Amino acid sequence: MNQRIKEYKVDYLLTAGECNPEAKMPVPLLVSRLIETATFHANHLDVGFARLSREGLAWVLSRVSLEMRRWPGANEAYSLTTWVEDVNRHFSQRNFEIKSGDEILGYASSVWMGIDIKKRQSGDLSLLESMRDVISEKRCPIDRFPRISLSPDHEVMSGDTYRFRYCDCDFNRHVNTVRYVELLLNEWNLDFYDTHQVKRFDIAFMHEARYGESVSVVRQQSGDNDYSCVISRGDDVLSKARIIFTDNI
Amino acid sequence: MNQRIKEYKVDYLLTAGECNPEAKMPVPLLVSRLIETATFHANHLDVGFARLSREGLAWVLSRVSLEMRRWPGANEAYSLTTWVEDVNRHFSQRNFEIKSGDEILGYASSVWMGIDIKKRQSGDLSLLESMRDVISEKRCPIDRFPRISLSPDHEVMSGDTYRFRYCDCDFNRHVNTVRYVELLLNEWNLDFYDTHQVKRFDIAFMHEARYGESVSVVRQQSGDNDYSCVISRGDDVLSKARIIFTDNI
Repeated sequence: MNQRIKEYKVDYLLTAGECNPEAKMPVPLLVSRLIETATFHANHLDVGFARLSREGLAWVLSRVSLEMRRWPGANEAYSLTTWVEDVNRHFSQRNFEIKSGDEILGYASSVWMGIDIKKRQSGDLSLLESMRDVISEKRCPIDRFPRISLSPDHEVMSGDTYRFRYCDCDFNRHVNTVRYVELLLNEWNLDFYDTHQVKRFDIAFMHEARYGESVSVVRQQSGDNDYSCVISRGDDVLSKARIIFTDNI
Repeated sequence: MNQRIKEYKVDYLLTAGECNPEAKMPVPLLVSRLIETATFHANHLDVGFARLSREGLAWVLSRVSLEMRRWPGANEAYSLTTWVEDVNRHFSQRNFEIKSGDEILGYASSVWMGIDIKKRQSGDLSLLESMRDVISEKRCPIDRFPRISLSPDHEVMSGDTYRFRYCDCDFNRHVNTVRYVELLLNEWNLDFYDTHQVKRFDIAFMHEARYGESVSVVRQQSGDNDYSCVISRGDDVLSKARIIFTDNI
């Protein structure tokens, strides 16, 4: 058997064309990169798409937390290193370190469920027992995923309604998780982003939306630069998120 | 001076998370990959973002044509090879070959303008004279960019109005070109894509849209599976496109 890499590193360059209006890495792109490096590492470990689909299973992203000290800028080289912190029959937890050269830019952690593709419910990942051998002791020194709820004590801001269209949907014939991230960020305007940047972003995906469905976003400011958000389809909560900004100085 | 590569190749893997609902590579992702490999090659030739921004210039994508025999599927490795076909003081033409192993999947061609960042108008690329040395004789055997116009002889279908939001905007503080591609594709529904796929896509970017602006899409069927589309902001035509589909068998 080939040597299995516990801490899997991928190098990237942030092209100008990928940058947000503040000439930094956009949050949705980082989430895409987390998913991509997780996919590459899972493929390397032979617990990726090919192996799972033979077993009628698929990985589904359940939670992401990310916390950045600094976002990469235009034309800056950066890397993501990913490792498995834990795995059991129902989910795996995978962490990420984002660096630019030797400088640590931030960390992320994620929880992935194994789902049975036909039943569309939690699958049995016992075939992934071998993943336990690659659990790494590397530290991910950001806070755990928080409890997210809207409080009756604070005002709720109702945002836009959005109907999902063809390009929002992916392989699973549901709305792509990255689109939820965009939907949330779009609740603030360009002026706000010119004076604030995302420091911490937590999102949980509870239910999937489908093509043609409409969702609404509500958000609540629970502290200075600290917001809780809910994406709903009627009475169904599809996703909850917490976003903490810092002032751009 | 280091050897300069005339035909620059980048290898990719199409992850499941990137696929469209038909489990193939989405058109907007291919357009992103064209922009990315063009960026990497330009950086390699020292005519990329870093060099141009020192001169107050930037590359702006003006036209793209792509024609695919087959789209990559989930978990399939593919490559893009890009080369310069022509360059003068005002624009460069760059082509692409998309392959899976030795199989040619399709071709693309693109026209890039050099713009003066401050004046927001066509810049003088005479500093790029050195690019003439890397012009390749490699062939791009797809038809040239077509003349696109709506005909008074056919019915016009008015599509949705869309207001651009934060995540639609990029580094230039305008709407990202890939968002126009999505906007056009979103005019057809999921059922249509389950029975048709894009064979040929041509798009010209004429004017840039900004944050908060609303645009509308109109399209006209000019032949069997052959559509012409216009994205407008009031009376201003921002983009014209032609899309040819084939029936999925």
